[in-house]
Amino acid sequence: MKILVINGPNLNLLGTREPEIYGTLTLEKINENLAAYAKELGVEIETFQSNIEGEIVDKIQQAKLDGEGCCGIVINPAAYTHTSVAIRDAISAVSLPAVEVHISNIHNREEFRKNSLIAPVCIGQIAGFGQDSYKLALEGLVNYIKNA
Amino acid sequence: MKILVINGPNLNLLGTREPEIYGTLTLEKINENLAAYAKELGVEIETFQSNIEGEIVDKIQQAKLDGEGCCGIVINPAAYTHTSVAIRDAISAVSLPAVEVHISNIHNREEFRKNSLIAPVCIGQIAGFGQDSYKLALEGLVNYIKNA
Amino acid sequence: MKILVINGPNLNLLGTREPEIYGTLTLEKINENLAAYAKELGVEIETFQSNIEGEIVDKIQQAKLDGEGCCGIVINPAAYTHTSVAIRDAISAVSLPAVEVHISNIHNREEFRKNSLIAPVCIGQIAGFGQDSYKLALEGLVNYIKNA
Amino acid sequence: MKILVINGPNLNLLGTREPEIYGTLTLEKINENLAAYAKELGVEIETFQSNIEGEIVDKIQQAKLDGEGCCGIVINPAAYTHTSVAIRDAISAVSLPAVEVHISNIHNREEFRKNSLIAPVCIGQIAGFGQDSYKLALEGLVNYIKNA
Amino acid sequence: MKILVINGPNLNLLGTREPEIYGTLTLEKINENLAAYAKELGVEIETFQSNIEGEIVDKIQQAKLDGEGCCGIVINPAAYTHTSVAIRDAISAVSLPAVEVHISNIHNREEFRKNSLIAPVCIGQIAGFGQDSYKLALEGLVNYIKNA
Amino acid sequence: MKILVINGPNLNLLGTREPEIYGTLTLEKINENLAAYAKELGVEIETFQSNIEGEIVDKIQQAKLDGEGCCGIVINPAAYTHTSVAIRDAISAVSLPAVEVHISNIHNREEFRKNSLIAPVCIGQIAGFGQDSYKLALEGLVNYIKNA
Amino acid sequence: MKILVINGPNLNLLGTREPEIYGTLTLEKINENLAAYAKELGVEIETFQSNIEGEIVDKIQQAKLDGEGCCGIVINPAAYTHTSVAIRDAISAVSLPAVEVHISNIHNREEFRKNSLIAPVCIGQIAGFGQDSYKLALEGLVNYIKNA
Amino acid sequence: MKILVINGPNLNLLGTREPEIYGTLTLEKINENLAAYAKELGVEIETFQSNIEGEIVDKIQQAKLDGEGCCGIVINPAAYTHTSVAIRDAISAVSLPAVEVHISNIHNREEFRKNSLIAPVCIGQIAGFGQDSYKLALEGLVNYIKNA
Amino acid sequence: MKILVINGPNLNLLGTREPEIYGTLTLEKINENLAAYAKELGVEIETFQSNIEGEIVDKIQQAKLDGEGCCGIVINPAAYTHTSVAIRDAISAVSLPAVEVHISNIHNREEFRKNSLIAPVCIGQIAGFGQDSYKLALEGLVNYIKNA
Amino acid sequence: MKILVINGPNLNLLGTREPEIYGTLTLEKINENLAAYAKELGVEIETFQSNIEGEIVDKIQQAKLDGEGCCGIVINPAAYTHTSVAIRDAISAVSLPAVEVHISNIHNREEFRKNSLIAPVCIGQIAGFGQDSYKLALEGLVNYIKNA
Amino acid sequence: MKILVINGPNLNLLGTREPEIYGTLTLEKINENLAAYAKELGVEIETFQSNIEGEIVDKIQQAKLDGEGCCGIVINPAAYTHTSVAIRDAISAVSLPAVEVHISNIHNREEFRKNSLIAPVCIGQIAGFGQDSYKLALEGLVNYIKNA
Amino acid sequence: MKILVINGPNLNLLGTREPEIYGTLTLEKINENLAAYAKELGVEIETFQSNIEGEIVDKIQQAKLDGEGCCGIVINPAAYTHTSVAIRDAISAVSLPAVEVHISNIHNREEFRKNSLIAPVCIGQIAGFGQDSYKLALEGLVNYIKNA
Repeated sequence: MKILVINGPNLNLLGTREPEIYGTLTLEKINENLAAYAKELGVEIETFQSNIEGEIVDKIQQAKLDGEGCCGIVINPAAYTHTSVAIRDAISAVSLPAVEVHISNIHNREEFRKNSLIAPVCIGQIAGFGQDSYKLALEGLVNYIKNA
Repeated sequence: MKILVINGPNLNLLGTREPEIYGTLTLEKINENLAAYAKELGVEIETFQSNIEGEIVDKIQQAKLDGEGCCGIVINPAAYTHTSVAIRDAISAVSLPAVEVHISNIHNREEFRKNSLIAPVCIGQIAGFGQDSYKLALEGLVNYIKNA
Repeated sequence: MKILVINGPNLNLLGTREPEIYGTLTLEKINENLAAYAKELGVEIETFQSNIEGEIVDKIQQAKLDGEGCCGIVINPAAYTHTSVAIRDAISAVSLPAVEVHISNIHNREEFRKNSLIAPVCIGQIAGFGQDSYKLALEGLVNYIKNA
Repeated sequence: MKILVINGPNLNLLGTREPEIYGTLTLEKINENLAAYAKELGVEIETFQSNIEGEIVDKIQQAKLDGEGCCGIVINPAAYTHTSVAIRDAISAVSLPAVEVHISNIHNREEFRKNSLIAPVCIGQIAGFGQDSYKLALEGLVNYIKNA
Repeated sequence: MKILVINGPNLNLLGTREPEIYGTLTLEKINENLAAYAKELGVEIETFQSNIEGEIVDKIQQAKLDGEGCCGIVINPAAYTHTSVAIRDAISAVSLPAVEVHISNIHNREEFRKNSLIAPVCIGQIAGFGQDSYKLALEGLVNYIKNA
Repeated sequence: MKILVINGPNLNLLGTREPEIYGTLTLEKINENLAAYAKELGVEIETFQSNIEGEIVDKIQQAKLDGEGCCGIVINPAAYTHTSVAIRDAISAVSLPAVEVHISNIHNREEFRKNSLIAPVCIGQIAGFGQDSYKLALEGLVNYIKNA
Repeated sequence: MKILVINGPNLNLLGTREPEIYGTLTLEKINENLAAYAKELGVEIETFQSNIEGEIVDKIQQAKLDGEGCCGIVINPAAYTHTSVAIRDAISAVSLPAVEVHISNIHNREEFRKNSLIAPVCIGQIAGFGQDSYKLALEGLVNYIKNA
Repeated sequence: MKILVINGPNLNLLGTREPEIYGTLTLEKINENLAAYAKELGVEIETFQSNIEGEIVDKIQQAKLDGEGCCGIVINPAAYTHTSVAIRDAISAVSLPAVEVHISNIHNREEFRKNSLIAPVCIGQIAGFGQDSYKLALEGLVNYIKNA
Repeated sequence: MKILVINGPNLNLLGTREPEIYGTLTLEKINENLAAYAKELGVEIETFQSNIEGEIVDKIQQAKLDGEGCCGIVINPAAYTHTSVAIRDAISAVSLPAVEVHISNIHNREEFRKNSLIAPVCIGQIAGFGQDSYKLALEGLVNYIKNA
Repeated sequence: MKILVINGPNLNLLGTREPEIYGTLTLEKINENLAAYAKELGVEIETFQSNIEGEIVDKIQQAKLDGEGCCGIVINPAAYTHTSVAIRDAISAVSLPAVEVHISNIHNREEFRKNSLIAPVCIGQIAGFGQDSYKLALEGLVNYIKNA
Repeated sequence: MKILVINGPNLNLLGTREPEIYGTLTLEKINENLAAYAKELGVEIETFQSNIEGEIVDKIQQAKLDGEGCCGIVINPAAYTHTSVAIRDAISAVSLPAVEVHISNIHNREEFRKNSLIAPVCIGQIAGFGQDSYKLALEGLVNYIKNA
Repeated sequence: MKILVINGPNLNLLGTREPEIYGTLTLEKINENLAAYAKELGVEIETFQSNIEGEIVDKIQQAKLDGEGCCGIVINPAAYTHTSVAIRDAISAVSLPAVEVHISNIHNREEFRKNSLIAPVCIGQIAGFGQDSYKLALEGLVNYIKNA
């Protein structure tokens, strides 16, 4: 079973910028840890990061189109959470189970960060647990697929 | 380490009502499963359900006041998610780490269910994974406390 | 056939307070009259009043759970009409036919009294007929159940 | 005692169109049934239907102006419920007691159907009981007039 | 010079209903007085009243189309002030100078009566002077036309 | 195959008023051209114009009720686009395929002209092509019916 | 009978600035013409202009307090129409009949110019007739006082 | 003269939690000080705290119903300030003079804390003076009653 | 200790106008009573009233700038409560403790009177106690300063 | 004459995904059919699809900049309809006539899909006719250009 | 060339209050520096500060009226930025080029400080550069006038 | 000292399109002039233009990441000003001082152009001075950096 893990704009800066806020973990390290955790869960992950909305749309489409059987998506849409109808439509179109993930608790930040365009087309949303958000999302998604 | 697990109004009906929607798991069974899972994580849970807003406020206060060392709260505020400033204030007042949990994906239901008064004073929110939402929340909370 | 008649907060004061507005009928008298009218319609009523939101939720749940076959609910949610998602969810959960009732015409009072959180999960709403609102609601509900 | 029963736009199609939704009762049949029920209550009804807002305004005015003593109005304003200040003003101007009636539960349909411009100038509103809505409204209105 | 004076829905009831509010002047009397005043101003008026939105649209169109040279419009749109895009479009289409007139001060009544769809396509609005509102409007309109 | 073509308020003025804006084509000429174009498409049209909302409701109902087999509706609701729940309900009730049409581009005019109450119950909307809007709508509707 | 005529901020610039818009009449000339017209009506006017909100409040208070018997107020509040609760309160406090006047049609200008804080405490509002707005207002006010 | 002093949800935690914010005064101590101050003013207080909305409603009703002559209410509704129509209705129903009190300045906190459902049915509101808010409220209420 | 007591627009009319509403106390008398009460509290007051927004800003600035040590401000901003960012900024700039005071209960008047621009930069707000509002504010402010 | 046909994000999936909703026509096939139809109309089309907002902006600019004489644009902006000010600005900047096109009826879907940022800078909008939307748009655009 | 530099309410306090926020530069010093900078640019400045909205209106009017040829305005409206329609109208009326200036970045302060009523009638707005905002505004304005 | 100058979507068209509006200066020429001006200020600029949101995010990140010491950013986000949370987050993440710049005065254009998502994370905003906006921004930024 393969899971696609997508990270949106500015998340490539994790760990190398503002470590007092986001910790010292780089996105590479988070992905590495998540891959190890995936192995424990008996699945494989493919990771992808882009700052470009349309490239994320492309990637979501390919997850379904290429023959290798991607079974689900973990996505941290970052800034695009609140503005991208295109990513929403892409997830709807490929009809793969997806989980929206956020490192910080988006519910206690600026007002415009509370509303998600993506979450309504996902299984659910996990926010606020730091890098653990990804692990919990992966675990929840894998269980969801197994029980489907 | 003891974690308090609170379920809000109408959740006592889980499993015995509308099984085609909510599955056949009763709240008792969910709590039982969660207790077993807690043991795996090396923690203990105390469960509580009430349909009365003020009783939930009382319980949150006692979690901090009684001497036995409750370390955190998993709470599914159900209908009170959207209307209870009192539960919000209680969580703030006791300053215990808390996680908001929802069985269904509240982000694709009625408009008034999208806004949470509770989430801004929690570590984060997990929604949409059925009974797994509780497990993921417990796991996330325990890790959070260990790393704090 | 048994019908549960629920009265929400402050309705226990009917008749004993502000008789120039609400008339001199006490809630006890209204209930008595309604019981007599129910007998004419060939049904039995059980009456319940509480100022506590959660106790109303409890009562609605028990209407379904106890073995005695309550068939429907007449509810005057009073102040909770506009604020209680919990009562709304309870009525949805027990899936008993319910009718929302108001003594006064809530449509020509303060703006915040126009919106009902409860009515969307009821058969319908009757407002403005004084104690007759209850009679009309009971009659409508009984016919509805007979034709269902 | 004579009561005017007004039906607004598109209600002339009742029973002949979409019987799976609105039942097989035509407006003629509903009116016939209502006339019979009126007789039981010791009153007489005059029925009127129009798709034209201004004709309904005309009719309401005549109810007061002609010498025959119309005592009250039962009105299902249908689509004009939400858009007609003119019908509202007409009811206010003639100061006859009126009851707003709806076959379906307007409170759980599209958002724009929740707000009534007419109800604030009526005794009250009855919605959701199918053809019984008319009967309940007539009964409530007759009692209201007798007690006035 | 001929001026068309239009009165909208329910204004035919003036004087015969609620005299304590609207005075004892009927619309006929107001029109008569206005005709006399028009004569003083050296113009002629044609009066028209309808409860039907579309008939008012028809009348406005004919004011321009008939060969007799109507030079301007005084209109009290009553309830249609707030809801009729059709009357607005008609006034725009015929491009005759028009004045909106109200007997009462619409600015201190219900919130929904404050906004006029008609006034933006008129020369101006006069409100609150009882029957004098018509006289002032006529006087203002006649001066406007003479100076144009 | 017969198609009903409805034009709403003020459209009878087309061509005779403000030719610099709306061109010199009268509604009669537009209808004539459209009839010719209909013949090319192998269908017949019946045209109708009214300034009265309720008459348009009547016409839509008759399109379904008379035995001659009207198959679809092209409607330019003009000002009623934005205010008529009654026309919306009529189109829903007769369940004939309908197309909303506008001569001008309503999306770049006043804010209140952007929202259509009619379009949600139509196949679709065509706006901005002058008299061609009708031709395109007819063509699209005919194809829709043939493929249905 | 003495009437106070108040002009708000920037109206002292009338006639000397942008004559293509506001005409070549200065405020002095308008006041002069109005004084002449007042004489015809058998009344006397006192004129006042200020750019300072509080000075207008002072003036309104003095109109009542000084012993000379000012009977009413014609006020063009200009920019303060939309922001001054203080002028509104002053008019309410002195309880003199007042008329709000505007040279231009404020209903077809920027959105923020449509709402008046002052009009609700006046007899009414006259807008759009150029300098004639003052004359019409004075005439309307004088008649109002005579009939009171 | 007896005054009822009601404290709403979470106020039982005062002094024992977050002393750097709320000071080291417990609610018991505040009540004790207030009782002493009441004695100076020549009145007696009864204190009540509950986290349950309906219990507060009950208490307010009893203040009026029991024969002992409670003359007024000082209430800090805490979180229920912003959500409880039921407490509002209770205060209205018993028609005892009441004063709303807040320890902190609710006007410079979260947006949702600015609006009070309770204050419109009270004499007034006092906010921002710490424990002195209660003293000032008591003093103001006592004077109000003496002068009534 | 000197306290500056500021009264905003129209408050100079207190007592001499509408005595049935505001009582027969003039502002001079209120100030006199307050000065006497101040003496009891061991402080001195300076009173100031203006109808001009900018003069109030000036006065607040001078309270800080003159060498005589004004320690705090009691301000009834009246109409400027809802519109003056300038007074708000002045209070912020001088950083003297201030209390906002209202004679009437602004929370149950027009909607636009509920929001205060001034209160967020004050210690708190007292409203509804007639002239006692000033006394309570003074008392609260003096205690606040003594404890600071 | 050359027309540029642009398809926005996720439209490359047409026909290969969810055929029960969008039919079995691929975008390639739609483009092929449209090219054939273009030939009938005597014009040539160039097709372009991208998931990336900025690439669509680039393409629109090149349509004008390259020397080959593109005369107009048919654009289905898909998800970018509702979020892209950049595409709007690009169409404005190149001042080529453009038509906005939608396969489905966007007016009866989610609320956020009703508002178009693109349509105000186009000739008009066609929505709801499946692949025929493109044909109708092309036909309308070509006629528009010929008549310009 | 003479430029008028206007500073609104509370800006006279600059430098003498809260130096940790606004720096130690007084308005006098800022004006002095700006005058020196103006000399470098080959222009002369006249400076003006007032806390009174109407005095600023007066000053703007005089800038045009006096014969000495003021060519443009640099204005920091401070608190009046957000509330003064009167200053907006004054700038429009004199039709001198103006630049709105702010010391701090108003776009990241309270929500009500984001909207400017003044900027739409200016050349542009400069915010956030401390005293340099004035210099940049002067430079921009002078270049604008030279190129006009 | 190196400053990065970013231009957003459609700005590459400057000078070659609509010269009557935007002047005849190309972006290349603006950049050239700005480079010359930079030299006067003793700094160096690097210019960048893209129509793709994500490429601008990439560029902002690289400004910080590459070793060459970019000290600040001048950005004209054009259409992305109003929609890009991603660019906002990028500027926040790299914590370089930035200035938002606009050629036209965005405050007097369409309503949706008034709100900037970018400005709150910048030092400030300069709008309305044509190409001079860039020069003023550069000057302001350089001074800011020197004084930091």
